[in-house]
Amino acid sequence: MSDTQLVSKSDAMQQTVIHITPQIQVGGNELLIIGGPCTVESLDQMEQTARHLSTIPVQLLRGGVYKPRTSPYSFQGLGQEGITIFKQVRQRYNIPFVTEVMSIPQLEAIVDAVDVLQIGSRNMQNFELLKAVGQVNKPVILKRGLSATLQEFLLAAEYILSGGNSQVMLCERGIRSFDSYTRNVLDLGAVVALKQLTHLPVIVDPSHAAGKRELIANLAKAAVAAGADGVMIECHPQPEKSVSDARQALSLTEMTTLITELRSVATAVGRRIVEAKPFNVAAA
Amino acid sequence: MSDTQLVSKSDAMQQTVIHITPQIQVGGNELLIIGGPCTVESLDQMEQTARHLSTIPVQLLRGGVYKPRTSPYSFQGLGQEGITIFKQVRQRYNIPFVTEVMSIPQLEAIVDAVDVLQIGSRNMQNFELLKAVGQVNKPVILKRGLSATLQEFLLAAEYILSGGNSQVMLCERGIRSFDSYTRNVLDLGAVVALKQLTHLPVIVDPSHAAGKRELIANLAKAAVAAGADGVMIECHPQPEKSVSDARQALSLTEMTTLITELRSVATAVGRRIVEAKPFNVAAA
Amino acid sequence: MSDTQLVSKSDAMQQTVIHITPQIQVGGNELLIIGGPCTVESLDQMEQTARHLSTIPVQLLRGGVYKPRTSPYSFQGLGQEGITIFKQVRQRYNIPFVTEVMSIPQLEAIVDAVDVLQIGSRNMQNFELLKAVGQVNKPVILKRGLSATLQEFLLAAEYILSGGNSQVMLCERGIRSFDSYTRNVLDLGAVVALKQLTHLPVIVDPSHAAGKRELIANLAKAAVAAGADGVMIECHPQPEKSVSDARQALSLTEMTTLITELRSVATAVGRRIVEAKPFNVAAA
Amino acid sequence: MSDTQLVSKSDAMQQTVIHITPQIQVGGNELLIIGGPCTVESLDQMEQTARHLSTIPVQLLRGGVYKPRTSPYSFQGLGQEGITIFKQVRQRYNIPFVTEVMSIPQLEAIVDAVDVLQIGSRNMQNFELLKAVGQVNKPVILKRGLSATLQEFLLAAEYILSGGNSQVMLCERGIRSFDSYTRNVLDLGAVVALKQLTHLPVIVDPSHAAGKRELIANLAKAAVAAGADGVMIECHPQPEKSVSDARQALSLTEMTTLITELRSVATAVGRRIVEAKPFNVAAA
Repeated sequence: MSDTQLVSKSDAMQQTVIHITPQIQVGGNELLIIGGPCTVESLDQMEQTARHLSTIPVQLLRGGVYKPRTSPYSFQGLGQEGITIFKQVRQRYNIPFVTEVMSIPQLEAIVDAVDVLQIGSRNMQNFELLKAVGQVNKPVILKRGLSATLQEFLLAAEYILSGGNSQVMLCERGIRSFDSYTRNVLDLGAVVALKQLTHLPVIVDPSHAAGKRELIANLAKAAVAAGADGVMIECHPQPEKSVSDARQALSLTEMTTLITELRSVATAVGRRIVEAKPFNVAAA
Repeated sequence: MSDTQLVSKSDAMQQTVIHITPQIQVGGNELLIIGGPCTVESLDQMEQTARHLSTIPVQLLRGGVYKPRTSPYSFQGLGQEGITIFKQVRQRYNIPFVTEVMSIPQLEAIVDAVDVLQIGSRNMQNFELLKAVGQVNKPVILKRGLSATLQEFLLAAEYILSGGNSQVMLCERGIRSFDSYTRNVLDLGAVVALKQLTHLPVIVDPSHAAGKRELIANLAKAAVAAGADGVMIECHPQPEKSVSDARQALSLTEMTTLITELRSVATAVGRRIVEAKPFNVAAA
Repeated sequence: MSDTQLVSKSDAMQQTVIHITPQIQVGGNELLIIGGPCTVESLDQMEQTARHLSTIPVQLLRGGVYKPRTSPYSFQGLGQEGITIFKQVRQRYNIPFVTEVMSIPQLEAIVDAVDVLQIGSRNMQNFELLKAVGQVNKPVILKRGLSATLQEFLLAAEYILSGGNSQVMLCERGIRSFDSYTRNVLDLGAVVALKQLTHLPVIVDPSHAAGKRELIANLAKAAVAAGADGVMIECHPQPEKSVSDARQALSLTEMTTLITELRSVATAVGRRIVEAKPFNVAAA
Repeated sequence: MSDTQLVSKSDAMQQTVIHITPQIQVGGNELLIIGGPCTVESLDQMEQTARHLSTIPVQLLRGGVYKPRTSPYSFQGLGQEGITIFKQVRQRYNIPFVTEVMSIPQLEAIVDAVDVLQIGSRNMQNFELLKAVGQVNKPVILKRGLSATLQEFLLAAEYILSGGNSQVMLCERGIRSFDSYTRNVLDLGAVVALKQLTHLPVIVDPSHAAGKRELIANLAKAAVAAGADGVMIECHPQPEKSVSDARQALSLTEMTTLITELRSVATAVGRRIVEAKPFNVAAA
């Protein structure tokens, strides 16, 4: 990595802090907690989720409306209908929203409605999409490709920064390996290394890495201990009924427990997770 | 793989033959030979290449005008200027042309000028691009992703077939592994398996797999012996001056030698490679 | 995994606790801290190390006398001379000792002098050695092979248990992958999974996984947060002069800092690390 | 690779030819054909196999008497009884025999009874065993470890050569990767590279790489086209009744067909496979 790259640290202390809302930041002392379902399925599902998560609190709600699916015959996401749903939920519960875009038309359709854009693993080297995202003024979560080296990952981010958008979070979400017990191998060594190589915030998605809900809590704690700036966790009001990735979704109650446990680990490594807040009656 | 998928064989003998031109086919007894530089650099470079390769003969000329580059600061291809160049060469030497597209606007800009479209490894699961390519009436070379399973590879092709375009060639080009001696690991077991799983033609790119020119000839022979329907080889009039992938480009003379050697192997496994033809004076 | 295997849990609470000495255990609430150099080099080196580490305290001293080296021309360990050295140090500082054996003659030469035996990654499936170790009454650290699945790892342990020795600790130490930035990829998902699959203690060696000293502290914290029962860390009085693995050895002072930091993380996940003790004058 | 290593080529033409018997060589123009079952199961099984294979002819009979098995509860081989069986068969059919050793006592028990020793993948870095094999005067097949780099593979061979035994064949047998469709990924790029790096003969075992019998023939042809000096193929009089690796064993008839097909490919690349001979009545 040349020091002249935009993603590189000029000194060990350089650290970008991204403001998702005036209250919510990532890259500073406070960890960013992202939660929500794999897929936006219905208004009811998203309302239940947002009502519960906003008290934990989860600070950024996730949910896919355009879904990258291995098979063309799998459910491809609600699209425009999903955008309408999350707009309603976002306003009612005053919680910012992140969703994935897979193409420039999708980006154009959604950019004004979301708070954070996500580029998924399969598109980490979709360079035309990276260039387009480099032109918008929204924070971006860039997920590491399934077999991307750290250099390739950083240079993918460089495409966005060199386009003018410096609000990029890197997200480690598991790499492909030989053992099928876990869906992917969560590479926390990469998280430690990235924190030393780049000033960009680095977050971790243990859900896609593990692929099994019983592994997620301990991997999330490990991510925080390793120095991650945030975690992204899949959860669902009724995990067993999730239309995708059901095997890895936590219940909303499990999310509450997890965030409580993460707070202790965060404190142990000198970080902070925002405190739980009482249920917002106005929102109910 | 379900038998109801469009890519799957209904019986062991089912085999799609794709007509690139009335004279040039892939998937039948005759092997498809593709050659040319990584990148279209200049009219002179492409003329030299086409003049030589058309006598071997290479049946399909390759050359990138939109280049997927790991770094945003690397040369990104000549774009429109490159299209103008290959149009001239294609017409003058009467040789069909294949080039890579990385986005829908690039597809639209180029579709009428090329004979075969290529979807590169990094875009194997760029589902919006696959859907768009499914709408056009041109043969497509779909390259396997660096860590794509065979099922993922076949389902990526299924996106194109289910859109209406059944002229898809699958291309094995090496998978990512732990040893850096070769750039990637050429997975010829995948070629043998794919020939049993799908009726689509399967070709092999040993150049990107090997990453070192001294390994390419023997890997190309191995690909033919394994049952591949064609090979794609990088070559350049002056390999050491190639703007990209110089380490893996063969010289034009080495290409002549290689095709001669491949003919013997093809014969040994009951396949055929078109005979060399005298230099086409009209074209000179 | 069949429930009838000796390594498998009969219920979620089953947990083997191994007594290394009457005071030092692994598998219970208290974490096992192992430290020391890659290689036993001299009496002076081991004395300096033991004097410092015994106050942190590190509870189990490591150091190789038989070294598995990729090249036959690399230093192969001090052998018998090394055994003499660690016997002296072990007695003087009253600290138990673990070292690797690679063959049955080495096992026979060393078994009475050590407290814990180590089977290295390269010998995880050296079944004759596993059977031999199954016959002795000493705790064993079994390191995961570089590309061993969890099932293979557990069945390697089963070889030892089925021979009659149930004092086996599993050690995750990184798996081989495609990116050379870290030496190997530390697979903490495997640690979480193993803790659910087996009643055997599971420890983590971040030093061999990372291969770079600046990554080790945060990976060790992550290991503790993930639920590991102990950590094994390479350190050396003069890391830069280490005859092997110099790039990944911590200094003794860095070890002190690390153990202090690990204590906080251990507490956050309901575990304990033994407290530091004053310098033992008698030993000086 | 330093030029001073014993395994390295001093010039491009240097090639070691190993004499297995006065008539059977490997490393020269003629390819070495090895066949036989995974495991020696009974005298009848081995007699049937030897009677058929010696006419194809297969030149070296394989069969395990000490079996490396993932589980301690799997059949571990016939041991001494197996040695007795293959000694009878070897004498009666005048066909040399290769079998695997996993430890020094096994080596001592078997060395006088076999023609070629095999070190399996799991023991590629069992350095004590390599050193012991370096002391004997028998050809050795050294199989590549499941995730061994070429450098590690060559240095494992160097252990044998530096001990004084220069009769080493390297055997590529598939590396571990992410796709479970094939058991392992046959790395023919490694074969091409090894032929350029070392003067030692390089052979290929497509059976363990593929793990599925329908893939083996084409991979064997590819291996020959890539420049391998021999192939090792698993076969069994009744493949479906094989006690191990049944899914990948060819029938004896399939072996006859395969060797015939390999002869054409060998010829195409300037190599030779010994001609079939009539059934040896004396042996019947």
